[in-house]
Amino acid sequence: MRQHKLALCKGHFLDWLVGQTQRFIHKYHMFSHEDNLLVSVSGGKDSLALWDILIRLGYKADGLYIGLGIEEGINYSSYSEQLCKEFASKYNTRLIVVNIAEQYGESIPQLALKSNRAKDKPCSVCGLIKRHVMNFVARESHYDVLLTGHNLDDEAAVLFGNTLYWKPGYLHRQWPVLEANRPGVIRKAKPLCRFYEKEMAAYTFLRGIKYIYEECPFASGAKSIYYKGFLNTLEANQPGTKLQFYLSFLQAKAGGLFAENADPEIEAIHACLSCGSPTSAPGECAFCRLVKTDH
Amino acid sequence: MRQHKLALCKGHFLDWLVGQTQRFIHKYHMFSHEDNLLVSVSGGKDSLALWDILIRLGYKADGLYIGLGIEEGINYSSYSEQLCKEFASKYNTRLIVVNIAEQYGESIPQLALKSNRAKDKPCSVCGLIKRHVMNFVARESHYDVLLTGHNLDDEAAVLFGNTLYWKPGYLHRQWPVLEANRPGVIRKAKPLCRFYEKEMAAYTFLRGIKYIYEECPFASGAKSIYYKGFLNTLEANQPGTKLQFYLSFLQAKAGGLFAENADPEIEAIHACLSCGSPTSAPGECAFCRLVKTDH
Repeated sequence: MRQHKLALCKGHFLDWLVGQTQRFIHKYHMFSHEDNLLVSVSGGKDSLALWDILIRLGYKADGLYIGLGIEEGINYSSYSEQLCKEFASKYNTRLIVVNIAEQYGESIPQLALKSNRAKDKPCSVCGLIKRHVMNFVARESHYDVLLTGHNLDDEAAVLFGNTLYWKPGYLHRQWPVLEANRPGVIRKAKPLCRFYEKEMAAYTFLRGIKYIYEECPFASGAKSIYYKGFLNTLEANQPGTKLQFYLSFLQAKAGGLFAENADPEIEAIHACLSCGSPTSAPGECAFCRLVKTDH
Repeated sequence: MRQHKLALCKGHFLDWLVGQTQRFIHKYHMFSHEDNLLVSVSGGKDSLALWDILIRLGYKADGLYIGLGIEEGINYSSYSEQLCKEFASKYNTRLIVVNIAEQYGESIPQLALKSNRAKDKPCSVCGLIKRHVMNFVARESHYDVLLTGHNLDDEAAVLFGNTLYWKPGYLHRQWPVLEANRPGVIRKAKPLCRFYEKEMAAYTFLRGIKYIYEECPFASGAKSIYYKGFLNTLEANQPGTKLQFYLSFLQAKAGGLFAENADPEIEAIHACLSCGSPTSAPGECAFCRLVKTDH
């Protein structure tokens, strides 16, 4: 691992990664062993690895799988659901499954077609719905913290996009843990945010975890993938750049770089009148308006 | 100009660029027609174009040429000095020439060899010396404002580098104009900071200004050139990205993104005991220590 100037054998690598995750959970005050955790799992390597690590660390962590109904290409949704179920039964742990089409009458691609957001790509609608369902399930089922498997490559790409356009709201909010300090908001954490994607790939491989290799069939051409490519070029030229970019941002922020009162968007958040989820829209949240419009 | 969704003929382009410069001078409160201006000219297109524009706009602008003694390759310094002198005599305007070797006993490459900074590349020493001489001459000759020809590509590359490492001090200081709010500091301004490099190249070409095409022979491999290449790729994929990156930074900053009291480096600046130039070092500035060590 040139980025850390470190070379480890299988056993030490697995210990190192689990130990580092514990360190990050402490460092960013994410959660404790008393908390009831809900891990959002997609069937991909990062979220299943996160669930695996949390179980090994002795945390009370259930899984949430959201069935998007994306059957383009390789039966993406069916296959990823099957992998999550296999993981849960192997570890004898609880998996909550929410099927969007069953719950709301239509799959993500169908909802996207009817929406004014992104006619050609369902990604924006998909993000909206997943955020809603994750929040809603975690809140209704009384979990303390919602966890996602975002890795360093994800976080650095988001940061790069937000920096390219200097979006104050997004720069203010990006952090390894998001507090539940507004109505309807559940505490969220990203324990893998400091691991390179290739480190997570190595972890799942060495642990023998079965996961879906394919990206979502709609992902090609996404901005995040474009930004990841850029950051990978910078990284190839100077190993450690990606980590440096993200960590120096966290350090600068913790050091008081940003003015505290500069996020009007956070201030405007309230609970949706229909579902209770956090929203900055007046009255009902974008999810409730989308689902109602479509029926 | 895809970045502005604008296409202009020669006459309108030249008027547009000069008019926009005037607009930026006003917008960022850079200087007025009463101020005595000193333009730092290198013989390159940006600084000579800036001088040309200021003269056309009726400002009182003299030039400062610093002879670095870099004769590698194409007699870089001699040729650029000659071009600056030709420009000044053609416009019948004053050019101050400071020859580093005559003034301080040794050329930039010689001083760099003796310094602990960058044994292989004189760029760091060169920057230190140029900043010192520009400040010193402007102050001693009672100019009100010191101007440099930095264009958008320069500023965006600097911003990119500072953002990649989230350097609070540099992020706080980057702005089209720097106030003279500390001992020994002269007011500085960059009126071309919102123009693409290719716009400046078009301006000098259309105005028939003779300038040195070659980069400094020591510039190859410089980080700024590497970052410029990156930004050019982003720009090619989405015209306007470079401008967007820089402008949204300025807007976010003006909108209060950064905390005001977060720049301890600025607070520590005082006047050098030997030359009176601004420095954060105790006692003497880095320039005075460099020149003394070397003799």
